Amino acid sequence: MSQYQPARGMRDFLPEDAQKMRHVEQTARQLADLYGYEEVITPVVESHELLAAKAGEEIRLRMYTFNDLAGRKLALRPEFTPSLARLVATKLRTAPKPLKLFCIGSLYRYDEPQFGRFREFWQANYELMGSNKPEADAEILTITSDLLHRLGLCNFYLKIGHVGIIRGILTQEDIVEDQQNQIMQLLDHKQWEDALTATEKLGATQHCQTTLKNLFETKGKDTDRTLKKIKQTVKAYEKATAATENLQQILDLAQKSGVQHETLIEAGFARGLEYYTGMITEAYVPELEGLALGGGGRYDKLIELFGGEPTPAVGVAMGPDRIVLATEKQNINLTQKKENRILVVPIKPEMKTQAFEIASKLRRQGIVAEIEVMGRELSKALADADRRGFTHAVIAAPKEAKEDKVILRNLKKHEQKTIKTNELVNEIQAQQK
Amino acid sequence: MSQYQPARGMRDFLPEDAQKMRHVEQTARQLADLYGYEEVITPVVESHELLAAKAGEEIRLRMYTFNDLAGRKLALRPEFTPSLARLVATKLRTAPKPLKLFCIGSLYRYDEPQFGRFREFWQANYELMGSNKPEADAEILTITSDLLHRLGLCNFYLKIGHVGIIRGILTQEDIVEDQQNQIMQLLDHKQWEDALTATEKLGATQHCQTTLKNLFETKGKDTDRTLKKIKQTVKAYEKATAATENLQQILDLAQKSGVQHETLIEAGFARGLEYYTGMITEAYVPELEGLALGGGGRYDKLIELFGGEPTPAVGVAMGPDRIVLATEKQNINLTQKKENRILVVPIKPEMKTQAFEIASKLRRQGIVAEIEVMGRELSKALADADRRGFTHAVIAAPKEAKEDKVILRNLKKHEQKTIKTNELVNEIQAQQK
Repeated sequence: MSQYQPARGMRDFLPEDAQKMRHVEQTARQLADLYGYEEVITPVVESHELLAAKAGEEIRLRMYTFNDLAGRKLALRPEFTPSLARLVATKLRTAPKPLKLFCIGSLYRYDEPQFGRFREFWQANYELMGSNKPEADAEILTITSDLLHRLGLCNFYLKIGHVGIIRGILTQEDIVEDQQNQIMQLLDHKQWEDALTATEKLGATQHCQTTLKNLFETKGKDTDRTLKKIKQTVKAYEKATAATENLQQILDLAQKSGVQHETLIEAGFARGLEYYTGMITEAYVPELEGLALGGGGRYDKLIELFGGEPTPAVGVAMGPDRIVLATEKQNINLTQKKENRILVVPIKPEMKTQAFEIASKLRRQGIVAEIEVMGRELSKALADADRRGFTHAVIAAPKEAKEDKVILRNLKKHEQKTIKTNELVNEIQAQQK
Repeated sequence: MSQYQPARGMRDFLPEDAQKMRHVEQTARQLADLYGYEEVITPVVESHELLAAKAGEEIRLRMYTFNDLAGRKLALRPEFTPSLARLVATKLRTAPKPLKLFCIGSLYRYDEPQFGRFREFWQANYELMGSNKPEADAEILTITSDLLHRLGLCNFYLKIGHVGIIRGILTQEDIVEDQQNQIMQLLDHKQWEDALTATEKLGATQHCQTTLKNLFETKGKDTDRTLKKIKQTVKAYEKATAATENLQQILDLAQKSGVQHETLIEAGFARGLEYYTGMITEAYVPELEGLALGGGGRYDKLIELFGGEPTPAVGVAMGPDRIVLATEKQNINLTQKKENRILVVPIKPEMKTQAFEIASKLRRQGIVAEIEVMGRELSKALADADRRGFTHAVIAAPKEAKEDKVILRNLKKHEQKTIKTNELVNEIQAQQK
């Protein structure tokens, strides 16, 4: 037995799992096409400076960092955003707005491995840059929901909040951005009490404390009712009120997209990354509470921080590997069985060339065709083909070949007949009906 | 302007290039399906021990190596083979043979960047494990040729050799494997004279020297003639003769696959990796001499070296990024234009929800539909849509909406008409014909 194993936190996807991953990837790419998001591919390895520039402490400390042979400090990307911001600030600087980008690939974080959490993981990102309008946010929510729906998930919900609500209050209480960031981190970890203590220490008013406490408790799947309650709670705070109205507009549009999903509004919802400025979201299935299938939000200031023009932006990152987990929990089959699978068997060594000709012909017609490459005799080859789920065997035999014929054996029905070689494709397709 | 650039040797693929890369990837995957190769996904990060175990010095020194936070020595994969060998020696140890695997992804080598050579590059690998028969080698050649053919390349050739020819001679001259490896390295770098000097120093006979010299000069696109010449040259060497016969059998089969490509036989052809034991190949287009689009060969001892069962194996690694270069040189267009591209424009803010409904409906029918998200007025939105190559605009207007109608504007013909919303899809499809 080999002593070699995947490195800690890394994994192999064997054929069935790989097929599921590629199916999610392909569906995500088709969706990008339908929504007009153009794909870009950026490198897994970036300069450490870029990746560390705006990452929160939490991500920065968990990056795979190393020097190349020339001493440059590099790292494996822990998220796509810095790479995309780099593109928008440089090569795509003059691209007309809205700029809609899609990317998919693997990311790396030195996390403690656990169920659904690996050191190499995947994201499919959709980013809409250039619009500060609620329809942009709504489109991102629609994409999120549409992807999960198209993959067959029927029971999922989007948790939605707006960082402008809490930040609006804190700003009006003269709490500066750095301090706000710390409070948002506490909220991300659901440390509500600590957040209240922190704001108190920072000199927030009693009214602010009461308002925050109420907000932290405000959540619900009845969108209208929950939004109404938030509006009532924050009415003394102008910016928070505006944020709530913005959220209302976004949800009104997203709910018209015709895609069915539940919405859970949470007034105290925050996400780990500091760069969000507006609506934020995460997608969940009930079977995997605590494991977001994806998440995103609005980040209007980030592109500028990377040296680009001021560019309002909103996006979402979906996790293909977690989505696969969710489909398994909901008994959704993402793998596809081949309709026909043909094994071409040369009955004698001199029939090998004909076997190659036949297999090539079948493949050119889009039929899956393999050649018996083990040099086994016919009965063993057929037994193995049957075991592996081939639907047919085509037997290349000398006598038949002289008449331009082959033997077609239906492995499911245990029948065989001798037919003209040029009728093979039609016959296989006919048998399928 | 942003100070951030991709790290040295890394690159971004903007939409057009990304589309080409994904097209090659998708074609490679479809081909794997047709030939019955199952896809696996292995991690980009592996233990350094695994990756360094059997890599030649040349690759080992150019690996991106680093320690994780727990002090484990890791590296970015410079090739797929160790990861696949690891799988075959462990999780796939008991999988029935032949085992046909496909994988595609990015690899990393600290090479000096130059035209067509980057530090992050791609490979699509096809590996056939378990068969030592010439039909297995022939299948790998057929796949190589088939992939390039399906991508539209019509002028390409496969350089083909057999390491058993030279190694057979050296073995019979009592030159041990380590010394053989050094000589094969010299051949890989086309240092023919140095190779002859080396064998002389190792005590090879004069006859051996003459034979090798002849072989190094033996190459040609006339397969039969070249093989005949090789056979004649090596006739005193039993193993070399057997290797030449093996090559003959492989080529006989591969040339029956119906895929047209030129074959260049080179008796003195060697590849950088030490683990090859039989047929070897590289694919080229004349426009990019010296830049292989892919390469591979037989490696019968490698799986065992990684702790697996003795497993004969043959495979090929194709380079999607270089294949894209080749298609560009041959003016082959891998990008696809969308048939229809629709911009849905709400004429007034209150029409936004209808715009979302319409766009969703179109997408569910597989039509590319974007929503005007910039909040621009109609004339500006239409001018921009025209500039960006949209084929139609659907205008959601209040008066028309009351009658369940929308305005469909054909941006190519500069015509518009008011139609029932539920006739939209049919009308768009009809206009295309």
